[in-house]
Amino acid sequence: MEGIVRLEILKIKESEKRRQEDFLVKEEPLEIRVAFEKGGIHHQKSISVTMRTPGNDEELALGFLFTEGIITGMEQVKSIFPAQVRWREARGNVIVVELAEHLEVNFKRLDRHFYTASSCGVCGKASIEAVFVQGQYELPEVQPLFTLADIYALPQKLLRQQSVFDTTGGVHGAALFDKTGTLLISREDVGRHNALDKLIGSRLKQGLLPMPECLVLVSGRIGFELVQKSIMAGFPAIAAVGAPSNLAVELAQEAGMTLIGFLRSGRFNIYTHPERVIFE
Amino acid sequence: MEGIVRLEILKIKESEKRRQEDFLVKEEPLEIRVAFEKGGIHHQKSISVTMRTPGNDEELALGFLFTEGIITGMEQVKSIFPAQVRWREARGNVIVVELAEHLEVNFKRLDRHFYTASSCGVCGKASIEAVFVQGQYELPEVQPLFTLADIYALPQKLLRQQSVFDTTGGVHGAALFDKTGTLLISREDVGRHNALDKLIGSRLKQGLLPMPECLVLVSGRIGFELVQKSIMAGFPAIAAVGAPSNLAVELAQEAGMTLIGFLRSGRFNIYTHPERVIFE
Repeated sequence: MEGIVRLEILKIKESEKRRQEDFLVKEEPLEIRVAFEKGGIHHQKSISVTMRTPGNDEELALGFLFTEGIITGMEQVKSIFPAQVRWREARGNVIVVELAEHLEVNFKRLDRHFYTASSCGVCGKASIEAVFVQGQYELPEVQPLFTLADIYALPQKLLRQQSVFDTTGGVHGAALFDKTGTLLISREDVGRHNALDKLIGSRLKQGLLPMPECLVLVSGRIGFELVQKSIMAGFPAIAAVGAPSNLAVELAQEAGMTLIGFLRSGRFNIYTHPERVIFE
Repeated sequence: MEGIVRLEILKIKESEKRRQEDFLVKEEPLEIRVAFEKGGIHHQKSISVTMRTPGNDEELALGFLFTEGIITGMEQVKSIFPAQVRWREARGNVIVVELAEHLEVNFKRLDRHFYTASSCGVCGKASIEAVFVQGQYELPEVQPLFTLADIYALPQKLLRQQSVFDTTGGVHGAALFDKTGTLLISREDVGRHNALDKLIGSRLKQGLLPMPECLVLVSGRIGFELVQKSIMAGFPAIAAVGAPSNLAVELAQEAGMTLIGFLRSGRFNIYTHPERVIFE
C-alpha cells in the first residue's frame, strides 16, 4: 500500500519482548515549485518544502497554493508535472505547478509566511545527511540506561506537569528525564515542535547541552523534525505516546539514537538501538 | 494562568445541551528575528514566524535557532529582547536574538528550509484580518444543516476510511461530509495540514469549491491554520476529535463558521455558530 513502510521492530509488553513485523507511515519531503513566464523567460520558483506522506501530490500542491491565496482557481493553472531532477532519490519529490500566462502572482505575500521546515534536500536521504552536517554533538555509545519500570512510568510523569493540557486538552508536551527516570524539565505548546524547542532552548541557556544520559518524551507522534531537533541537542533517546514515521526511524537509526513509540498502558515498541533499555 | 483563555461554550451530551465555561489553549504568532552588525550597520533579519502558545519565548527562539543550526551555543548570543513594534497588539510577539559581533551566519542555509506558516502579521488580530483579505468566498448564512445523530456518527466514518492510520497509527486524517452525513472524500497524511490541503486540492481540481452545505472533520486538534484553510475553501463547518485553540475559535467566530471540538463518545462542544446544528 502506498504511504506505508514495513519494518521489523521489538515489541515490549510488561516484561516480555519479541521481534515482530510492523508498519510505519511514510514521510518524505515534497518541494512545491511554481513555473511562470516573465519577460519571455521561463521561471521556476520554489514555494515550499513540506514533510508529507507520498501520494496525491498534485492535490497537495493545488490545495496548498489555493489555501495560501497564491492561486484562486484552476483556470490559473496551465499544467502540473513532476520536476526533472538529476538525483534519483529526489524523483517524485519535486512538483511543478505551471501558471497560466499573463498571471501576475504576488510572491511578496509569501515573504511574511516563510517559515522553516527542517527538510534540507528533497529526499529522505538528503534530509538525514543534512542533520549530520549541521549537528555538532556525536551521540554517546549505546549502553544500558533505562529500566522497563522507569520507561513505563514516564507518560504519567509528563501528564502531571502539563497544567495547560490539564485545563484545555489542547497542547503538546515535551519532557526531559535523566537515567533514573527523574523529570528534569517539561514544556507545553500548541505546536509540537515549539514545545521541544522551548525545552532545548532552556537547556542551552543554562549551558546544559549535550545530555549524554537522558531521554526526551513527546506527547504526540514522532516525525523527522522531532528526531532532528533531539539529535541537535545531543539527546541519546526519544520516546512518544504515538507512532513514529519511517523517516524518523531511519534518522534515529543512523544517528545512534534509541527511539520508542506507542508508550502506553504497560506496552511500548522499540524501533532503534534497544540496547539502551535494561531488561531485568 | 499564562497560555490559557476562558470562554463560554455549548456542551452537548447525547441530546442535552448546556452553556458552560471552558478553557482554551492560547495561540499567537511569534516572529523570531536575528540582529547582527555588518559593515558597521545594525541589521535585523526575520527568520521565522511560528504559531505558538505565549510563554518561554526566549527559550523558544534560542531552541529554534540552535536546533536549526543557526547558532551553535550561547557564546554566539549577545542579548535577547522583545522588538520595539508600533502596533500594540503585536507587542510581545516579536523577539530579537542579537548575535555576537564578528559572527558569520550562513543565512543561505535557511533558504532551503523556508516553508509556510499561515501567520501573516504577528498578532492574532492581524492573522485573522489577513484571512479575510485573501479569502474569495463568503461563508453562507448560518442555517440548520446537521442533526446530532449525524454529527455523532462522523468520527467512525472517517476511521473506516483511514487505511494508513489503521495500519500504522501514525497519520492525520481529514474528511468532507455533506449535510446528510455522507462522506464525500477523505485524505491522510503524516502532516495535519497536508491531509486538509490534499482534500481541498482534490475538490478544487474537480471544480467543486466552494461547498456551502458541508462539514470538514479533522482527526486531531484545530489550530488557526486548519480553520484558515477551511475558510479559503468555503467550508461552513469544521469539527475535530481534539481541542481547538483560542485563535482558531476567534477566526471561526468572525468568519461565520461553525466550530465543533472534542467530538467523541456521544459528546461534543460547540464553540461558534451553533445554529447550524439541528436539535430535534
